[in-house]
Amino acid sequence: MATSIFTKIIAREIPCFRIHEDEHVFAFLDINPLSRGHTLVIPKEPAQTLDQLSEESAAALGRVLPRISRAILRATGATAFNILQNNGAMAHQVVMHVHFHIIPKYADGSGLGIQWPARALGADEGAALATAITDQLQ
Amino acid sequence: MATSIFTKIIAREIPCFRIHEDEHVFAFLDINPLSRGHTLVIPKEPAQTLDQLSEESAAALGRVLPRISRAILRATGATAFNILQNNGAMAHQVVMHVHFHIIPKYADGSGLGIQWPARALGADEGAALATAITDQLQ
Repeated sequence: MATSIFTKIIAREIPCFRIHEDEHVFAFLDINPLSRGHTLVIPKEPAQTLDQLSEESAAALGRVLPRISRAILRATGATAFNILQNNGAMAHQVVMHVHFHIIPKYADGSGLGIQWPARALGADEGAALATAITDQLQ
Repeated sequence: MATSIFTKIIAREIPCFRIHEDEHVFAFLDINPLSRGHTLVIPKEPAQTLDQLSEESAAALGRVLPRISRAILRATGATAFNILQNNGAMAHQVVMHVHFHIIPKYADGSGLGIQWPARALGADEGAALATAITDQLQ
């Protein structure tokens, strides 16, 4: 696990607009927001990607997301939002410390833009893939 | 809280390619995947959006995301992935029951496409907004 700018933000070595802090979690405004209220929610544990994060930190993160989301909606007046968490440079991760974006979406279009080139899952493909994944869960 | 197709999937009234189930959480393959291994992780609690979900369900969801993500990476060979959770029709939510997408991102470009029109957050704006959100957290 490497340190990043987020380690310094948690340690107060770099200033931020803080929203929330508890034993496991730290939340602050993104300084390059996609929309008004764009917030980052991060574990204090310096895991680079979510698959490397402890279950304890992941549960603590999940627990506060509804409450922080409600506060953002109330403070901004937004009624829709996206939560996005990127893992790996190829998946648009820039800072190598787990972070959940909470991004309000507004009627003027500001917020997260998504491209959704979906296809249909074949029955044989689905069955084989579900088996392969559940095998890895054991 | 209304029922949706996900209520029927949890109840086994509609078939799915199941990946995981515990007391609070159900996970299965998306039948219209963006990429190989695209999985949905949902609470059994039928909340429409994350801001309406109980902390107990949200913590249980958070807790299993690392483990399910690792299983997907191992089964597919993917090394990068995005987690996306949409709230409200304006934010691309289609089924009105909370769901986290786990979407592997591959070198061929398959996976989630993201548009990121960020701007800079002004200092006065940031301070006022952080205060407004933390006030709502009390």
